[in-house]
Amino acid sequence: MRLSTVRVTDDRRTAAARQEGDELVLLPYSDVGALLAAGDDWQVRAAATDGERLPLSEASLAPLVPHPNKIVCLGLNYATHIKEMGRATPAHPTLFAKYDGSLIGAHDDIHMPPVSDDLDWEAELGVVIGRGGRHIPREKALEHVAGYTVANDVTVRDWQHRTREFLSGKTFEATTPVGPTLVTPDELPPGASGLTISCGVDGHTMQQSNTADLLFDVADTIAYVSTIITLLPGDLILTGTPGGVGAGHDPKVFLRPGQELVTTVEGVGELRNTVVKDRL
Amino acid sequence: MRLSTVRVTDDRRTAAARQEGDELVLLPYSDVGALLAAGDDWQVRAAATDGERLPLSEASLAPLVPHPNKIVCLGLNYATHIKEMGRATPAHPTLFAKYDGSLIGAHDDIHMPPVSDDLDWEAELGVVIGRGGRHIPREKALEHVAGYTVANDVTVRDWQHRTREFLSGKTFEATTPVGPTLVTPDELPPGASGLTISCGVDGHTMQQSNTADLLFDVADTIAYVSTIITLLPGDLILTGTPGGVGAGHDPKVFLRPGQELVTTVEGVGELRNTVVKDRL
Repeated sequence: MRLSTVRVTDDRRTAAARQEGDELVLLPYSDVGALLAAGDDWQVRAAATDGERLPLSEASLAPLVPHPNKIVCLGLNYATHIKEMGRATPAHPTLFAKYDGSLIGAHDDIHMPPVSDDLDWEAELGVVIGRGGRHIPREKALEHVAGYTVANDVTVRDWQHRTREFLSGKTFEATTPVGPTLVTPDELPPGASGLTISCGVDGHTMQQSNTADLLFDVADTIAYVSTIITLLPGDLILTGTPGGVGAGHDPKVFLRPGQELVTTVEGVGELRNTVVKDRL
Repeated sequence: MRLSTVRVTDDRRTAAARQEGDELVLLPYSDVGALLAAGDDWQVRAAATDGERLPLSEASLAPLVPHPNKIVCLGLNYATHIKEMGRATPAHPTLFAKYDGSLIGAHDDIHMPPVSDDLDWEAELGVVIGRGGRHIPREKALEHVAGYTVANDVTVRDWQHRTREFLSGKTFEATTPVGPTLVTPDELPPGASGLTISCGVDGHTMQQSNTADLLFDVADTIAYVSTIITLLPGDLILTGTPGGVGAGHDPKVFLRPGQELVTTVEGVGELRNTVVKDRL
């Protein structure tokens, strides 16, 4: 099953929707996160409900989960990216957060902020939690996954490195596309492993890797995060990016206004976003 | 005016409340964050409403804002703490996040997790945003403050330093007391500057400083964060801790189960929390 969050009527209201061929069937939940939070039988309810339909091609997609309780991001989680950033292989997952104001839909513009021109791409596999929990053992962790999605952890690279902490460069307003759909685990290999992940800028492939190369895989990550804090339905995990980011080039390459960023995870979906420059 | 969030009926429902002498007057909002989100005239509504009363001494205090859209924390923001952690004076605020599952009430137990014994204290001045905004100029920033509170950014020190990113050690479940009340700015000096801040463990003073020594003050911080992302009503900012943390001692000193942590900001309030050890 494939689910999306779409904007309806005007841009101020959203609804969860089930994909059926080239149509979306609107569900009586404000977004996919609200559907997941309404109970463990969300998949039954999402499959059984009939509602207003709209052509997929006409849908305005909101962030897949617009207001997760948590957005947990992994840094340094592909060997290729660790190498290009000049870091040692970590013994533990490097976790950082984003705030939901950074999220945008699968086809929304990425906003380059007035204060920086160093906007960089980071294609990532996204994981949405279905059933919450604390102290989830690794071997049960995948049972807590509602589904997988595509994200790009677009980063304001100079602000990321202003201080020791990544957050400032990772949570700029309207920079992080997430979508277009949540793909339930039955449609994918276990843990969404073995999928090609790639990122292109104006048709040039900049990142191409495979989710099998994740240093800490989806089950590892869920077990680890839930050691720290209770995961809740709708929580969003971004699993880290492979090599090929702009800051890893010599000289460094960054996104320019007007460029189109295309992010794909094989069998999961594609994001297509244009960079726009914000002015004060 | 002083406002709190209290647990009512059972522990699953909370309400915002206005302090009147030694009583709390319950307001028709689920918590102080919900009151602030309901509109810019929150102060008028909070002052005018009459409701059920309960003795302050019997109140069970929830985290002042249980579900902020953002919890923004500053690291390395007092010269004394920067020195004890062996860091250079930063040119920019060091920002990191917490998730709301880490928050507890002003008198709740602090949960030392099963995976660590290195629990450390960090007394902090807390700021709650009243009016949201982006690109807020420094000179208007204090107009966006709903009020001030007390927090202790209790840290799982070994997990903080497992990776380059602080988050893992900063967001353990039920570790961060926030409260007991929101004190509106009219009762305090501008920017809550010039107030004694202190932290004691079982009656021994471990931290004592003054909010006038903040490297980036409240107005600086609001202006800076809003350069990155839109601040929303109820957002919680923890402004950093002064010198005297356990990790700064030689040898290091950490909290032990059963110890009482008392955190005060002059004229703002006092937290009183007991450490309990969680077992799996």
